[in-house]
Parts: sequence; C-alpha cells; structure tokens
Amino acid sequence: MSGTNPTHRHFHEELSALKVTLLNMSAAAQAALAAAVEAVLQRDDTKARAVIAGDADIDHLETEVEETVIRLLATQQPMARDLRFLMAAMKIANDLERVGDHAVNIAQSAERLLASRLIVPVPELLEMARQARMMLADALDAVVRGDPQAARAICRRDDSVDALHQSMFRILLTHMMEDPHIIGTAMELFLVSRNLERVADLATNIAEDVVFMVEGKSIKHHAEDRPA
Amino acid sequence: MSGTNPTHRHFHEELSALKVTLLNMSAAAQAALAAAVEAVLQRDDTKARAVIAGDADIDHLETEVEETVIRLLATQQPMARDLRFLMAAMKIANDLERVGDHAVNIAQSAERLLASRLIVPVPELLEMARQARMMLADALDAVVRGDPQAARAICRRDDSVDALHQSMFRILLTHMMEDPHIIGTAMELFLVSRNLERVADLATNIAEDVVFMVEGKSIKHHAEDRPA
Repeated sequence: MSGTNPTHRHFHEELSALKVTLLNMSAAAQAALAAAVEAVLQRDDTKARAVIAGDADIDHLETEVEETVIRLLATQQPMARDLRFLMAAMKIANDLERVGDHAVNIAQSAERLLASRLIVPVPELLEMARQARMMLADALDAVVRGDPQAARAICRRDDSVDALHQSMFRILLTHMMEDPHIIGTAMELFLVSRNLERVADLATNIAEDVVFMVEGKSIKHHAEDRPA
Repeated sequence: MSGTNPTHRHFHEELSALKVTLLNMSAAAQAALAAAVEAVLQRDDTKARAVIAGDADIDHLETEVEETVIRLLATQQPMARDLRFLMAAMKIANDLERVGDHAVNIAQSAERLLASRLIVPVPELLEMARQARMMLADALDAVVRGDPQAARAICRRDDSVDALHQSMFRILLTHMMEDPHIIGTAMELFLVSRNLERVADLATNIAEDVVFMVEGKSIKHHAEDRPA
C-alpha cells in the first residue's frame, strides 16, 4: 500500500467498478435468458414482454462500460495488463449486450408461440438454457478472478451445447416430417435453440478474452483446447 | 504540414494503414459471402471448401487490427476522435470477422445441401446477398471517409433485408407444408437466409460505429433513424 499514490489507487478503483458493471450486465443477461425460455415453455406473454422491455437496461450498461473505458484510456495511460483489461471489458460488454439480444429473440419467439401446441423437446431445451447460463456465469467469474485456466475449461464446454442444438434439430425435423401442421411451431423452436447455441458461443468469446487479458495472447482463432 | 512533427505524422500513417487493413478485411468478407451463396445455388463443393479454408485469413486480419490498436494506445496518447477511431476500428474488425463466420456457416450449409434438390427461392436469396454485401461495402466507405450521414442511411436499409428474410421464411414454410420431404433442405436454406440477415445487422453495427467515431455519440440503442 505504501507505494500506491492516490491517482493510481483511484484508477484501480475505477477498474473494480468496471468489473462490477460487467457482473451486473451478466446477471441481467442471465435472468433475461432464463425468463425468455420460461416464457416459451409456459406460453407466458407477460414474461416475454418483460424480457423485451428490460433489454434497454442491458443496452444502457453497455454504453456505460464503453464510456468508462474511453474516459480511462483518455485520462490515464494504462499499460500492459490494465490496457488489455480495458480492451477486454469493451468486448465483453458487447458480448453481453448480444446475449441480451438473444434473450429478446427468444422472447419474441415466445410471443409468436403463444397460440401453438407444446411440441417442444422440453428436456433438451431446458438443459441447453441451463448450460448456456452456467457458461456465462463461469465466464464472468473468470473475468473477475482473472483466471485463464477456468476460462479455457469454459471454451471446452461449448461442444456440449452444440451437441444439444444438433439433437434439437433432429427431434424437430422428425416432428415436422410426421406432422406438417406443426412446421411453423417447430421452426420457431429451432430458432430458440439456435439462439441458445449462440449464447454459449458468446460465453466462449468472453472466456477467450480472459486468456488474452491475462496472458496477452489470443486463443480465439486457434484449435487450442478444442477438439476438431 | 509545417506544424506536424514526425511522431505525429507517423501516428497518422498508422491510422491510415489501419483503415487499409479494415478495407482488406471487408473485401475478403464480401468475397467470401458472395462465394458462399454461389456455392449454395450452384451446389459447388469446391467453392464451399475454399470459403471455409479462407476464413483463417480474415481471422488473421482481425488479430492484426487488435494488436495495432493496443500498440497505438500504449505508445501514443490518442485523444478524442483518434481515440474513438481506434475503439471503433477494434469493434469493426470484430464485426467483419463475424461476417466471415457467417460466410463459413453458409458454406457449411452449401456442403450439406450438395445432394438436395434445388428448392431455394433464388431471386430473394440473391437479392438478400446483394443488399447485405452493398451495405457492408458502403459501411466501410463511410468508415474511411468518416461520413456519419452516409452511415445513418445504411442503418435505414437494414429493414429491407429483414423484410426479405421474412419473405424467405414464408416461402420456405409453404414449400415445407406442401412437401414434407424437403423439410431438411428448407430448414438449411432458412439458416442461410438468417445468416445473410445477420450480416446486414453487422453492417448496421459498423455504420453506428462511424457515427460514434465522428460525432462521439452512440446511436446504437436509440430509435433514431429507424422506423419502429
């Protein structure tokens, strides 16, 4: 503590506040995702509308992160890891904002599904939603703790969500073949599944940013840690 | 020129070089998109595989942009518009990398469609691909010229691509109802359409970044310039 001047301490308080904002964004995005999937399964219009209306809050938090990052870049001269953290924070906020958009997409599907029969493969959909949310929670945990090993483990879990999405596709295809009247409903549910799969991809992006933030190297476009 | 010191000039040369890299990325992404759609329509496996293999080049350009931005932030102290340009460059490179991923998704659909009959609503698909590519080209033009008015005009064109995607959905749904045997093919084409719609969204993101870069204000989450 003795070597820390007030300006420096202030800067690190700003960085901590930024982490808290990212955690709040992630919590809001996870809640939106859970509510959107419930709206689909329970044919709940009120819940769907709440998700759509609530997205503005997540958008607002992204703008807050961007403004803070630009202010800190302009007023401090962050180097090395602090600089990489600021870059990562902006990308992570962008990824979380997109998770919010996927929750809105799912809520919009829920609204279009209000009148349809429940043909959804419920266990697969619930499991996808659960895994995608957990990946997101763990990715933000890795951001806050700056833990690249935890981050790498998250990247590996993306394949499990992809496999569930493939399985949804096959189940829905079978339903459609058997009963062409439910094709519209099945395609809507396919979109829901696709949105959840994209959320898992975004959680993976965030985890990759943690590795970059801590180690200064990008694993994004490498085969590292991922089966072919 | 008299007031420009060598360091300052050097920095502005770096910014110009960054713009050239973004243009190259955009050109590569547009070419990949065009080739991927051709691969779908012509059932051309060679073309599809070339798109998938070529994505590494686009990924590499994104890494190059990120490294340059971080180096310039660390070694220069860019202020105001230059700082905002560097932030925007990183986001734009990320958006273009995602356009490349959508081209890969379309090429992968092309591979899965090799054996199927051609049921695709060709005119709609070609028109979507054309509009998405033009939006991307114009967005990059707005980046290079720093033209917020041109950028705002691009945002308004997103609705036209969305309408084509809706129209694709209805056409494919009708095909599927009439002949359940083509459901698999139709769902694949629906994915292709969805990918093109997302490319138009990404071009819109880039245009929004131009407004932020030049005017220092975000239009991203506002209703501004977009019909409800």
